[in-house]
Amino acid sequence: MEKELFVIMVLNAWNKALSQVDKLFAELSDEQLQIEIVPNGNRGIYLLGHLAAVNSQMLPLLDFGDPVTPHLYVPFIQTADKDIVDWPSTSELRSAWTKANAELAKHMNAATPDQWFQRHSAVSEQDFMKESHRNKLNVIINRTNHLLYHFGQLVLLKKRVQ
Amino acid sequence: MEKELFVIMVLNAWNKALSQVDKLFAELSDEQLQIEIVPNGNRGIYLLGHLAAVNSQMLPLLDFGDPVTPHLYVPFIQTADKDIVDWPSTSELRSAWTKANAELAKHMNAATPDQWFQRHSAVSEQDFMKESHRNKLNVIINRTNHLLYHFGQLVLLKKRVQ
Repeated sequence: MEKELFVIMVLNAWNKALSQVDKLFAELSDEQLQIEIVPNGNRGIYLLGHLAAVNSQMLPLLDFGDPVTPHLYVPFIQTADKDIVDWPSTSELRSAWTKANAELAKHMNAATPDQWFQRHSAVSEQDFMKESHRNKLNVIINRTNHLLYHFGQLVLLKKRVQ
Repeated sequence: MEKELFVIMVLNAWNKALSQVDKLFAELSDEQLQIEIVPNGNRGIYLLGHLAAVNSQMLPLLDFGDPVTPHLYVPFIQTADKDIVDWPSTSELRSAWTKANAELAKHMNAATPDQWFQRHSAVSEQDFMKESHRNKLNVIINRTNHLLYHFGQLVLLKKRVQ
């Protein structure tokens, strides 16, 4: 019962953040996504690829299977906007974002409260015995925070455009 | 035990976010805080006042007492940057931020796991019976997200300055 309540609290916050970001990406045109948020800073298109890649990588971290867009890992998690050589098209990145989220939602909706309190795949069994807060639900807390960090930046794109 | 674990997860995320923002405010000079993050957008100084005011208002919301800086509520929560007439000094806002956080930390450290699962002061007893996720810990989850939203914007100030 208590576990179920925690899960609701955390997943509610994640789903709310995700739908805000999803709505914003839908509102921003391909042209708007090409604008730098601040001079020499990331463009919206980079953050679209970055967030798609991060969400895709959540799948193995949560034992939900392989990332659906593994090819985005190196460019959008390990590389900066200006250093990416071979850019996917905007429509490909939009699809990657939608696909990663759909796959995540499928598994998240099916997970039991007990599953959420199991260790995530990047923590060893030994460490988890000492630090039981490093569970799958904690990944959602951290990723929600990460999502909002970039959401705060992405909303500024609306002000950058006439 | 489970309650305690969950409280740790949520408070860890809050404390991490708060210390990141606190470190950034300490790094940004008074001059840097005067810069608009994007043209016609909020300045750092506004977000400093805004976050101090929001944290101060968390005190009554969590039944931790009165806001320590009630005079910031109207300008920094109900008013936009450009519409504030009577600006407090930057040092006053820096102090307000520190003061609100110190008062919050004092009460947060003393709260028991059971207290965190009680309703916050903006939800009625009746509504809380139906929606028990609207507890004090949920306030921390939401305010952590809000903090990171603005943190994502504030870090861009470092790019705005030579």
